Amino acid sequence: MKIYNFAFGPYPQRVNIYLAEKSPPNVERVIFDAPDKQAGVPPASIKALTPTGAMPILRDEDGAIIGQSLAILEYLESKVSGPDMLGATPAAKARTREFVQVFDEALTFFGLWARHGSDLGRDTVRISLDVAAICAARYFDQLRLIEKMMSQSDFITGDRVTIADCVAMATLQYAADFYDVPVPDDCQRLARWCAEFRQRPSAASPRYPEDKRAIALGLMAQTGVGF
Amino acid sequence: MKIYNFAFGPYPQRVNIYLAEKSPPNVERVIFDAPDKQAGVPPASIKALTPTGAMPILRDEDGAIIGQSLAILEYLESKVSGPDMLGATPAAKARTREFVQVFDEALTFFGLWARHGSDLGRDTVRISLDVAAICAARYFDQLRLIEKMMSQSDFITGDRVTIADCVAMATLQYAADFYDVPVPDDCQRLARWCAEFRQRPSAASPRYPEDKRAIALGLMAQTGVGF
Repeated sequence: MKIYNFAFGPYPQRVNIYLAEKSPPNVERVIFDAPDKQAGVPPASIKALTPTGAMPILRDEDGAIIGQSLAILEYLESKVSGPDMLGATPAAKARTREFVQVFDEALTFFGLWARHGSDLGRDTVRISLDVAAICAARYFDQLRLIEKMMSQSDFITGDRVTIADCVAMATLQYAADFYDVPVPDDCQRLARWCAEFRQRPSAASPRYPEDKRAIALGLMAQTGVGF
Repeated sequence: MKIYNFAFGPYPQRVNIYLAEKSPPNVERVIFDAPDKQAGVPPASIKALTPTGAMPILRDEDGAIIGQSLAILEYLESKVSGPDMLGATPAAKARTREFVQVFDEALTFFGLWARHGSDLGRDTVRISLDVAAICAARYFDQLRLIEKMMSQSDFITGDRVTIADCVAMATLQYAADFYDVPVPDDCQRLARWCAEFRQRPSAASPRYPEDKRAIALGLMAQTGVGF
């Protein structure tokens, strides 16, 4: 099967980190740089595969096409070989999915904050310090909830890597590297996990478009948000 | 196993609708009315089961406790008997999960709009017409995406009920019944599905607290939002 994806961004990066951890032998990766309409990146034929045209997109030989990152991760878990990254029992799977969903909602809050708060959106969307303040608070609240849900283990859900680690790292890495938004001081377990998981080859920083990153960096100061 | 839940609300109602469709023989339901701190509803001992204390909460005999609605639905699919409501193949499961995730994000947008826009939140949260306008637009965009993803089938993902129908109905029913926010006119498939699924016993309207509903109704007019 084939995965069409971007080289960076929080939703694409979940899948990039997952594939780096899982190393499935039968998944071909087609990675695009940052979107560029004029240059035809990604190509219209790829974007036409799904209603949103958003990466990641998975296309299987049997015709199945999946255009949503969490559905792709679950599909890969059921179809490709490599370490189990969901959990061995229904209860372990449930714990992984709990974390995944809380991080996914955190990212929705972060996305609203970044999109409608950062100078990056100034020409394309409505800028709102209200949205920034309210969604930043909700984002940090989600991280504090994660902090409470975590045990003292090495990884997010326990003693091995799961898709929860992939979703968590993609989110926190994007917030930190592209917008300079760190894990709050009162989330010590999460911060320690983040620092340690960062050392893994799967979590190597992707190459961001530096012109955009220069505008994005400092989101907290730009929007007057503190912890 | 036991499920502790509220009688209404978009996240609890996903599970209520699911249980009504699935009819598992071995799941005991403990249903609470609207939360009431003074009256001790839900009881502190139940809320203490999870870090958020939010319903739904599933507690299995073997000690597993799950506090997130989508993780609960996946867990039930793997543990209880009844009609398959996820999909028979990895591709069918992926299609169900795609819809579930898009609806789940839609509900996050709707929740921000309702919470920070409605008069209901006036004494407890920051009211913001910016948040209302931006998140209402994102909510309707998600429904328009769903409309594009749907085929002409009887149910959200195809020819049978899945957890996508439960998540969809819980969201649209809450928006319509509690806040008077309908499906947009340009989402005809979704509107038709909604009208038909409403006829099922599983989708019977729950009893809402009428004092709160009286304040919530008319969210679009309250926040100056149109389609």
